Amino acid sequence: MADRSFEEYKSLVDEHLMDFIPNIDNKSISLYESMKYSLMAGGKRLRPVLLLASCEFAGGNIMDALPYACAMEYIHTYSLIHDDLPAMDNDDLRRGLPTNHNVYGEAIAILAGDGLLTCAFEAITKDMMMYFDSPDEMRKRVNAANAIAKGAGCKGMVAGQISDIEAENALVSNELLEYIHLNKTGALIKASVKAGLYLGNPTGEMLRDLEKYSDNLGLAYQIADDILDVIGNPEELGKETGSDLKKNKNTYTSINGLQAAYDRLEELTGAAVDAISNYYDNAEFFRNLVLKLAKRKK
Amino acid sequence: MADRSFEEYKSLVDEHLMDFIPNIDNKSISLYESMKYSLMAGGKRLRPVLLLASCEFAGGNIMDALPYACAMEYIHTYSLIHDDLPAMDNDDLRRGLPTNHNVYGEAIAILAGDGLLTCAFEAITKDMMMYFDSPDEMRKRVNAANAIAKGAGCKGMVAGQISDIEAENALVSNELLEYIHLNKTGALIKASVKAGLYLGNPTGEMLRDLEKYSDNLGLAYQIADDILDVIGNPEELGKETGSDLKKNKNTYTSINGLQAAYDRLEELTGAAVDAISNYYDNAEFFRNLVLKLAKRKK
Repeated sequence: MADRSFEEYKSLVDEHLMDFIPNIDNKSISLYESMKYSLMAGGKRLRPVLLLASCEFAGGNIMDALPYACAMEYIHTYSLIHDDLPAMDNDDLRRGLPTNHNVYGEAIAILAGDGLLTCAFEAITKDMMMYFDSPDEMRKRVNAANAIAKGAGCKGMVAGQISDIEAENALVSNELLEYIHLNKTGALIKASVKAGLYLGNPTGEMLRDLEKYSDNLGLAYQIADDILDVIGNPEELGKETGSDLKKNKNTYTSINGLQAAYDRLEELTGAAVDAISNYYDNAEFFRNLVLKLAKRKK
Repeated sequence: MADRSFEEYKSLVDEHLMDFIPNIDNKSISLYESMKYSLMAGGKRLRPVLLLASCEFAGGNIMDALPYACAMEYIHTYSLIHDDLPAMDNDDLRRGLPTNHNVYGEAIAILAGDGLLTCAFEAITKDMMMYFDSPDEMRKRVNAANAIAKGAGCKGMVAGQISDIEAENALVSNELLEYIHLNKTGALIKASVKAGLYLGNPTGEMLRDLEKYSDNLGLAYQIADDILDVIGNPEELGKETGSDLKKNKNTYTSINGLQAAYDRLEELTGAAVDAISNYYDNAEFFRNLVLKLAKRKK
């Protein structure tokens, strides 16, 4: 049962986030520093928190899930570093601080991203090596690892990023916009939930229900973000995606207007809550998370 | 026993190289195309060939090793795409063809690299999922996966790339240069050999001996490349690293001169051959590989 608060899970992530970054040689110390800079630049830790909460929800041990939770944050952080690059979104600030390439230069920022992505799988495979004699524990970890790789990959987050770039300055349909959101933002959120569940003992039904929850959460999260871009006040929510409005990016609000965005957000929030209605007492964390998200926008 | 020729292993890699790239949605088709472009741009396939040969050398089945061999080429290819970017080496040509970013633009090139790196671990974790009921087979794969992640990561290839960038325009010692080469070039070569061995049934001695072989091979490979940069004729060997001479990069020849480089190459070649002297009949592939490399330089 996921009965801790968001803040409790987050503290655990913050405390252990550097644990799975290898001790780096002095000769390449700026790699370590640049990775640490972005990891420690004040993220909300939504993805690792979701992973830990999902693990507990499925009866798993969150201390065992930490390498996977941190791996998820490494992957999220690498994607932000690369997204901010001049050739991509060309952002100078991220969470109120200079972006990685503004501090370390573009070359090191590219490599810091590459390093973080690789660290994720180094942490995961290193963890797996402790379970050679426990086939059940190994199965959990391999399933979690594959969910993470798929979510981060060419039919997941990277696919969403590519179609987001290709859709710039073009008129896109709501269908394409939803594809972009489901992949660019949603895929890592869903992967966090799935990986967390796999690290416990989930039933098939639980996997299906929480997958539906996380798809709706991912879309709601992105639309809430688009709304904030219009109504301002990004600081309050620790907003992450930067000022898409300035970049001719398609957003739900730019296509459908603000009221339609509020309506859609409510619809998605409802669908997320419905998806977990079978787990009333046990799903409080997940319900609170999506309701809080919706409430703070209005 | 690794009794096939380099060309035989290479054909197998070329034939299956796209097998582990997921079928990508039409909405992100340029991701697939850009990854395929660089994968199919005529690589020598040294790393996957070494992985397959090492697997057979340790009594493994090379068909089982194919996902890992291809993953290694995905990682090598991602590193070349990112290396060529304007913010890094700023190369227009790679193996005689326009570099990825020159064809698809910088943003897509960055994402194609990210996609390939992630595909590597998606292929690996997907393969692992077939071995939940075979702890011995799982152990081989987890060990191989960890060797690959470590070699590609922050104490391996990415560390070498960072220190290579930081050493630009500076006077470096031979010690630092060797650190750069052992990591930037050597780490993936060593990881290929180790991962291949793990996929078979290696003894501890075999792992140690082949590790020594691959460290020497990696350094020899880089010095042979530096020599070619001086004496020209890069086409003949399918040279990969671009014209470092033009970029104020430190090379063994620029620091020590051409004759010292030839001497060092001979020394390294000898050390590589010595490392595998216990496996005389079975190590012909590995002996031929390093000797051919040295011979073609003179």
